[in-house]
Amino acid sequence: MTIQLEANLQNLRAKAPLVHNITNFVVMNFTANALLAIGASPVMAHAVEEVEDMVSIAGALVVNIGTLSPLWVEGMHSAMAKAAQTGKPIVLDPVGAGATPYRNNVLTALLEAAPPAIIRGNGSEILALAGASIQTKGVDSTADSTDSIGAARALSERFGSVVSVSGAVDVIVHGNRTAWISNGVPLMTKVTGMGCSASALAGAFAAVVTDPFEAAVSAAVTMGVCGELAYRAAKLPGSFQIAFLDTLSDISPAHLAELSKIRLE
Amino acid sequence: MTIQLEANLQNLRAKAPLVHNITNFVVMNFTANALLAIGASPVMAHAVEEVEDMVSIAGALVVNIGTLSPLWVEGMHSAMAKAAQTGKPIVLDPVGAGATPYRNNVLTALLEAAPPAIIRGNGSEILALAGASIQTKGVDSTADSTDSIGAARALSERFGSVVSVSGAVDVIVHGNRTAWISNGVPLMTKVTGMGCSASALAGAFAAVVTDPFEAAVSAAVTMGVCGELAYRAAKLPGSFQIAFLDTLSDISPAHLAELSKIRLE
Amino acid sequence: MTIQLEANLQNLRAKAPLVHNITNFVVMNFTANALLAIGASPVMAHAVEEVEDMVSIAGALVVNIGTLSPLWVEGMHSAMAKAAQTGKPIVLDPVGAGATPYRNNVLTALLEAAPPAIIRGNGSEILALAGASIQTKGVDSTADSTDSIGAARALSERFGSVVSVSGAVDVIVHGNRTAWISNGVPLMTKVTGMGCSASALAGAFAAVVTDPFEAAVSAAVTMGVCGELAYRAAKLPGSFQIAFLDTLSDISPAHLAELSKIRLE
Repeated sequence: MTIQLEANLQNLRAKAPLVHNITNFVVMNFTANALLAIGASPVMAHAVEEVEDMVSIAGALVVNIGTLSPLWVEGMHSAMAKAAQTGKPIVLDPVGAGATPYRNNVLTALLEAAPPAIIRGNGSEILALAGASIQTKGVDSTADSTDSIGAARALSERFGSVVSVSGAVDVIVHGNRTAWISNGVPLMTKVTGMGCSASALAGAFAAVVTDPFEAAVSAAVTMGVCGELAYRAAKLPGSFQIAFLDTLSDISPAHLAELSKIRLE
Repeated sequence: MTIQLEANLQNLRAKAPLVHNITNFVVMNFTANALLAIGASPVMAHAVEEVEDMVSIAGALVVNIGTLSPLWVEGMHSAMAKAAQTGKPIVLDPVGAGATPYRNNVLTALLEAAPPAIIRGNGSEILALAGASIQTKGVDSTADSTDSIGAARALSERFGSVVSVSGAVDVIVHGNRTAWISNGVPLMTKVTGMGCSASALAGAFAAVVTDPFEAAVSAAVTMGVCGELAYRAAKLPGSFQIAFLDTLSDISPAHLAELSKIRLE
Repeated sequence: MTIQLEANLQNLRAKAPLVHNITNFVVMNFTANALLAIGASPVMAHAVEEVEDMVSIAGALVVNIGTLSPLWVEGMHSAMAKAAQTGKPIVLDPVGAGATPYRNNVLTALLEAAPPAIIRGNGSEILALAGASIQTKGVDSTADSTDSIGAARALSERFGSVVSVSGAVDVIVHGNRTAWISNGVPLMTKVTGMGCSASALAGAFAAVVTDPFEAAVSAAVTMGVCGELAYRAAKLPGSFQIAFLDTLSDISPAHLAELSKIRLE
């Protein structure tokens, strides 16, 4: 197993996939610009009146619950059901999982209704998501979910999803496959929307790469490598976010592959 | 016919018109900053409970359907009706026209209820809008709407609106008048909200310039010239969007006029 | 009475308080980034289904009515009631007070239901807020509210709140205490979300400083000093907003105290 980073980024830029985002108010602008910068084509639409039509013309669906409310959740359900029905990969970003019962309930219902190709969150979100959607429902799991990697394995086993856990080292699991990605810089946690953009890029790669594990790894590496390059140019968060967008646009597929630090198992 | 670019920008900055925007979540921040940078005063308000009062104190209304939903559409209808009744110019940006039936239906209803002074979109949106609002209703048109300029003429004829079509060359039509504007750079398509800001600037100019055709041309030239100047400073999309805002604020009316590339017919 | 600026900023960064924001669509991204840059931890959540749970885990609540609508107002009421009940400081930003009757009515109801620790607005908003919530209700006030400082005193007397009036000189009143802060630069009025970020920072300081007057002064000084430092690096609004975020992150507590220009009475 190897990850074709160079080919995958070339492919993304050649196809410029339409990525349908139902995401939060805080990050919409940054996410749209990140998708444009890497070479994808973003569209944001959330109304139940049109999400089925929109996802039907998209290459992937990214659902992010950051600023959720009932009408938006209704749109998420419709869009995810249509995506599942038409074979479009779904990326779910469980922002703030564990913070409130409402988030946990919404996430559990979304996961049950249409299992995502990729779930991407930070460690505490993945832990909370596994707790809410598996343990609290009394579903047995052979995986140990007392840490975030165990939780990721449990979620992957239960829903068949690739689970991508962002952190100082990103860990991505699917079945018996695991990737550790050591790219990235701590400053990325000081800019809002970095995690959400990681999910959006996972959607962009999933739209053009058949294997969602490979798509998730490609997205995580792209985030991390571009974070490192941006940090060479900008050490403070305002200018860093701008340098990051510049880097997404400027990086060559060969350079991406060259700077990647992936361990596969 | 000439376009008084220098006087129009001076006028805009002297009057700092209040521009009422009902726009999409993705671009609200960038649009507000673009309006502030050029010298206007932005306000965003969408609730049906207050849009009539807000548009009553504004100099122009900009409606952009990018992330539409029923409650927002209700606010758009109220605001447009009040704007029409009180003689405030309306700019309509049909974001994503043609992407879903819901968008087409909403746009058709908005156009019928309160014809805008200016409609601004890209070629495919203008084509889709003409298709949805004219052809599908069986309304005869003498204009050929098989290309975007023909579609623009058909829309202009049907609704009395100035129609501004953004592209490599912007084309603006109204009755028997046409302007071709050759300013701008391709990188503008890689930053989200550039088109939406073009519509917002059209609203700002329309608030201070009597002739909506002249307002639309002034806005398109301002976008294009500032895009060219920003590109001299920044060749990548993150830093380009920042340089663009800087340029909107910094450009002198004389410099704007000097760099304009307009052909009128 | 002195303001422990250095200790307060150290304290904020050491504790990284969770600040719950119910704010407007235009500024959410900038506000979240400003909170991250200064060292706080932002969360945005507005649905009535979860705001009580969210405010319960937060250190402060910031309510900003910029793009209000009935469902959001419902969330504001729930969150403010829960904050009052659990002793979490509330900051209220009355964006656009006076612009429409709907805004005035919503603000009056919010003030009556749960008096904020801090009210922060510009002069015209504070004047309008006092007019709507005091004068129009026939409540006697010993304060002269014909100017914004008089209005601030009247609001402070009526609701027990610290009232922070942003302007060329910021004025902050509470009971018989007044602070005049002469930091800041005019360019701050040309970037959207600066006032909203001032309110968010007031929430961050209020989460870690017991006296809300001291929290409000610390926030206003932080905004003003960082604005001055950012202006040394960037004289135009696009790059200024980026330099401002950089400065929030980079400024040392000692430097903040050194550059502060406060007059207390």
